[in-house]
Amino acid sequence: MQLGMVIGNVWATRKEDDLKGLKFLVVQPELPDGQSMEVPFIAVDRIGAGVGDQVLVTRGSAAANMSMDPNLPIDALIIGIIDSIDVEKERGEER
Amino acid sequence: MQLGMVIGNVWATRKEDDLKGLKFLVVQPELPDGQSMEVPFIAVDRIGAGVGDQVLVTRGSAAANMSMDPNLPIDALIIGIIDSIDVEKERGEER
Amino acid sequence: MQLGMVIGNVWATRKEDDLKGLKFLVVQPELPDGQSMEVPFIAVDRIGAGVGDQVLVTRGSAAANMSMDPNLPIDALIIGIIDSIDVEKERGEER
Amino acid sequence: MQLGMVIGNVWATRKEDDLKGLKFLVVQPELPDGQSMEVPFIAVDRIGAGVGDQVLVTRGSAAANMSMDPNLPIDALIIGIIDSIDVEKERGEER
Amino acid sequence: MQLGMVIGNVWATRKEDDLKGLKFLVVQPELPDGQSMEVPFIAVDRIGAGVGDQVLVTRGSAAANMSMDPNLPIDALIIGIIDSIDVEKERGEER
Repeated sequence: MQLGMVIGNVWATRKEDDLKGLKFLVVQPELPDGQSMEVPFIAVDRIGAGVGDQVLVTRGSAAANMSMDPNLPIDALIIGIIDSIDVEKERGEER
Repeated sequence: MQLGMVIGNVWATRKEDDLKGLKFLVVQPELPDGQSMEVPFIAVDRIGAGVGDQVLVTRGSAAANMSMDPNLPIDALIIGIIDSIDVEKERGEER
Repeated sequence: MQLGMVIGNVWATRKEDDLKGLKFLVVQPELPDGQSMEVPFIAVDRIGAGVGDQVLVTRGSAAANMSMDPNLPIDALIIGIIDSIDVEKERGEER
Repeated sequence: MQLGMVIGNVWATRKEDDLKGLKFLVVQPELPDGQSMEVPFIAVDRIGAGVGDQVLVTRGSAAANMSMDPNLPIDALIIGIIDSIDVEKERGEER
Repeated sequence: MQLGMVIGNVWATRKEDDLKGLKFLVVQPELPDGQSMEVPFIAVDRIGAGVGDQVLVTRGSAAANMSMDPNLPIDALIIGIIDSIDVEKERGEER
């Protein structure tokens, strides 16, 4: 999964029929230390995330494995709102 | 999902049997602010998108989760035509 | 989907049992204007494509959604042979 | 699969219902020689990995193929804790 | 699919239950001309490949479409051992 910050909303009235009622948010990917990376993408949210929330996002077709829903044509799902991240030894790019 | 602009059409008479009748469009990926990024790709459209429309695209095998159709060998589907995008705090690459 | 040019063949006698009889082609990815990009990869062909054909390729696990076949362990399938591409406004990388 | 080092934990109380009880770890991707590469991501662990363990990770929707669980919306799963890696001829990037 | 050279082995005693008995090999991705590219990754082998073999690898969740096995959490499978590659017109990166 990827960490990210919710930075906006997307509205699309005309869409694939089975996507009516889903909420689409703009997410800026982030590193565990909160630094932005890569480019924003659009994710579905079913857990009440909003702008300013740091979230955990599943990307790719696993995003369609939503309980209580048929497999929908979506490729990014917000699966959690972050309480805290604890990185003991940062061994990232700068090592 | 990814934002993009429809910039063209692709025609292929000889194709996998179960893809007859599908419409294939050329999509240029875009950032939420409309800036182009990466390279164009080809996506299936079932909602009536055309050249000049800003669209929301699902990529990867989730694109095959189309209602009323068996799972087809496609990896990009236009799932919405964008009405508006509202990005509150742009935290993109320039941060 | 991705556009590409068929540039060669791959032969492998020893392979996963259920892949016997499949044809494997080398594909060079291309932009809609025919310019090469990225690196060549190997795709399965069931529609009679050959060296010199410009093709439409599905990548990732959706390639396994082949009609009349069980889900096979393949990640690229040639789904069409291109007749023509019409790009109205080129908004690619150079914009 | 990808090799990596577990470098931290992520907590998210509010999440998709069927993810309750799963453990989420921060993983720094590594090359076979232990060199860090790319950026950290978040993976589910069910085999008792912890900070400092070198692990084998499955990424993408195959991560959801967990025995004894329905298909969950997760895209990275720790599938093994590394005992040893034996690379006979290093033909990596430096060749 | 991607071409690669088997360059090593990985051992992991502690792993997801349904992966017991699978062989994990280190694969260095290669271009059709044998040139190394990108970084090594780990793939499952069921066809008897070993160090020094040039192989054809399926990546992503399609790797889990193994005949006679349930869908396992693996994202790379060696599907063939290369006999020969015939590239008629090299149109790779140098064009």
